[in-house]
Amino acid sequence: MADQSRLDEVLAALDAGQPAAIERLLGFLRIPSISTDPANKGDVRDAAEWLCNELKSLGFEASVRDTTGHPMVVAHSQPGGARPVLFYGHYDVQPVDPLDLWDNPPFEPALEETPEGPVIRGRGAADDKGQLMTFVEACRAWKSVHGALPAGLTLLFEGEEESGSPSLRPFLTENAEELKASLALICDTGMYADGRPAITTQLRGLVGEEVIIRAADRDLHSGSFGGLAANPILVLARALAALKDENGRVTLPGFYDGVQELSDELSRDWQALGFDAAEFLSRVGLKHPIGEKGRTALEMVWNQPTAEINGIAGGYAGEGFKTVLPAEARAKVSFRLTGQQDPAKVRSAFRAHVESFLPADCRVEFHEHGGSPASVMDTSDPAFAAAKAALSEEWGREAAYIGAGGSIPIAGDFQQILGMDSMLIGFGRDDDRIHSPNEKYNVESFSKGARSWARILATLQ
Amino acid sequence: MADQSRLDEVLAALDAGQPAAIERLLGFLRIPSISTDPANKGDVRDAAEWLCNELKSLGFEASVRDTTGHPMVVAHSQPGGARPVLFYGHYDVQPVDPLDLWDNPPFEPALEETPEGPVIRGRGAADDKGQLMTFVEACRAWKSVHGALPAGLTLLFEGEEESGSPSLRPFLTENAEELKASLALICDTGMYADGRPAITTQLRGLVGEEVIIRAADRDLHSGSFGGLAANPILVLARALAALKDENGRVTLPGFYDGVQELSDELSRDWQALGFDAAEFLSRVGLKHPIGEKGRTALEMVWNQPTAEINGIAGGYAGEGFKTVLPAEARAKVSFRLTGQQDPAKVRSAFRAHVESFLPADCRVEFHEHGGSPASVMDTSDPAFAAAKAALSEEWGREAAYIGAGGSIPIAGDFQQILGMDSMLIGFGRDDDRIHSPNEKYNVESFSKGARSWARILATLQ
Repeated sequence: MADQSRLDEVLAALDAGQPAAIERLLGFLRIPSISTDPANKGDVRDAAEWLCNELKSLGFEASVRDTTGHPMVVAHSQPGGARPVLFYGHYDVQPVDPLDLWDNPPFEPALEETPEGPVIRGRGAADDKGQLMTFVEACRAWKSVHGALPAGLTLLFEGEEESGSPSLRPFLTENAEELKASLALICDTGMYADGRPAITTQLRGLVGEEVIIRAADRDLHSGSFGGLAANPILVLARALAALKDENGRVTLPGFYDGVQELSDELSRDWQALGFDAAEFLSRVGLKHPIGEKGRTALEMVWNQPTAEINGIAGGYAGEGFKTVLPAEARAKVSFRLTGQQDPAKVRSAFRAHVESFLPADCRVEFHEHGGSPASVMDTSDPAFAAAKAALSEEWGREAAYIGAGGSIPIAGDFQQILGMDSMLIGFGRDDDRIHSPNEKYNVESFSKGARSWARILATLQ
Repeated sequence: MADQSRLDEVLAALDAGQPAAIERLLGFLRIPSISTDPANKGDVRDAAEWLCNELKSLGFEASVRDTTGHPMVVAHSQPGGARPVLFYGHYDVQPVDPLDLWDNPPFEPALEETPEGPVIRGRGAADDKGQLMTFVEACRAWKSVHGALPAGLTLLFEGEEESGSPSLRPFLTENAEELKASLALICDTGMYADGRPAITTQLRGLVGEEVIIRAADRDLHSGSFGGLAANPILVLARALAALKDENGRVTLPGFYDGVQELSDELSRDWQALGFDAAEFLSRVGLKHPIGEKGRTALEMVWNQPTAEINGIAGGYAGEGFKTVLPAEARAKVSFRLTGQQDPAKVRSAFRAHVESFLPADCRVEFHEHGGSPASVMDTSDPAFAAAKAALSEEWGREAAYIGAGGSIPIAGDFQQILGMDSMLIGFGRDDDRIHSPNEKYNVESFSKGARSWARILATLQ
């Protein structure tokens, strides 16, 4: 009961401090920390410094740590509590184009009233600045009420999550002793459906590839050369068109090696979630789930791999018309992996596939953009059950174990390099428009998220 | 002999005035008259005004004539000579991207020494400002030496040739009485191989189409939706990949209706040209002619139709990586037509083809970018033989009747609206890099081009 009373004081402090917490988040969101664009390098560092200063003001021993890319922020609390825990989030954000589809500038965030309640709108509001700040605010409340955190915490914030995390594995390896804990907490996932809290226990892996096909040494006039010279766009289109068959199956040889069918137990649990694919798609203007025949929509996005073309460019695609036969065409393609699929093998199979489409006179160049296997958590750690109970208590609904279609390679990295599992808990909603124009984060997610972490921290005492 | 002496004086004046003529062209090239980009609207008008002032200074009755798009420049000489002739050129230029591939800024033209002699480098040097100025300089020389032109001339300069000529047909129709002549002269073509003059007697037609495929109402996260939501890039790639079969034949039903096999006579003439496809391709870094089996390279580019993808764009193709599942993808596709192919039927067949690839949840939008049938000249008009002789005399090599892979719809428009054939004579070379970075025009083309026109004008007396 003493513990409950200590927790109640923390929750009350969070409620009282909500307006100030929102102001702090808006300040954080104003920093355009796009990690993928070299033009924003200084902004990314500014976001790291901002975060470091926040943590220092809460009594953390915090520092901005250089890497060969964007910096890490690492912070330590005083030792204490039953088990050391590592919290992870990322302070970089996605690019913002197409800019003209934003109702307001992406880095002029604002609190906005909507029929579903107030939201914080701006790039990074949900992914991941708003989410990571739920944990920081929970720490602030514990510290302000009780003078100390209930657990011994290390916080790790990355600035390259949206650009393939090139520095993360080296950093974890070099600082393994400092960062090791008995469990990691990761706040970069969503709830299951609106208002139902969840712990994500399996994540798809990711292989990112850029392919550039070149033919002539310059753009050609399609009148002079059309019909005679190879067209890289056509070659690229042929290779990409053949990536999936009529049933939505990826055609690369060996692609499905290591994919595991869903266990009967998880299959039943996921069926019980009552996922409505048509309703889910209708939120983005779609009606018809595509993908393999005979599989449920949740299976397709949580437990089946896929191949997607994320971008394509070649020749003249601006206003008007230019009858050019282009020198090159390029595409970005990513594969979502499940089970034991091997990222290296998938990458090799893709490259061999593209090469098999190359006619004489065409050359191909590949660039690697991240690769990580899928990740599945061991939920027998009692911390999972305790966190599930805490989440259920806060939200008034039974928390669920769910999968995620997205890739959070850090969970696999923590397993491989630091030897620990992760609890993936986040408060994002499906309609948050992450990676899209007009990204937002509900104030409810932000406030109840912070309260949820305050509760979970209490269970780690 | 009196005529020859009169001509010799004109040719001498052209030689003496060459440096000044080059300076005038450089001034013209400095005006960035890109008709396809709305940002350059004022520049296009500036180029029209520049040209109009030049013509006025030569005694032409010249004016800039508004259209709903970019203006026309029309100029009339005093009546005279045996037959009234209409000269046509265009003062607009192609876009310049990719800008980083230009060795010098495209609108800071310069005279440059090369192993093959001096060239004038800059956007529009060859296509078409340099070419049209060969005719203007020939007029200047006739006028300065003899006080009058040898023929009654009307000059028509267009500012929308590189963007599909939307105003041309209405303008010709509305001003038919003013523009009608017995023959048109068009200077927007090349020579056959370096140093061999040519009259182009057949041109491919053109159908330009832009296709936009849309699915979700926003860009989606490929983690949350990948495998479940339709991907417009994949749909577009499938439609484009199927445009040609393995043998290079266009697959659209009815596409080849109206295509005519080469006459035995032209076939022999073209064979006699000794075209070296491997050498031609090697100039742009290629080795292997593609296209239909069993056809010569000249047949492929002059007498066979083709389909080319001129541009494609969708999703995120910038630096780094963005795991987006895009809301839309677009491509620009053009068809080169020959013989009696019907542009409207080709357009319809293409649209039906794309529509046949649309899954549920995808929508398609088409934009028309120009459409014109192929054009074949009647070379029995004695002006052709006279011009051929004049060209042969100037260049010291037998002039050839050739075809062109490019499209100059105006030749067809002149036939249909003004009821006259055209003599297509130009001095461009295959290595002029028109429509590409580092476009250039040889000083030899410019100077001997002007001398050629001076001679041809004499034959029209």
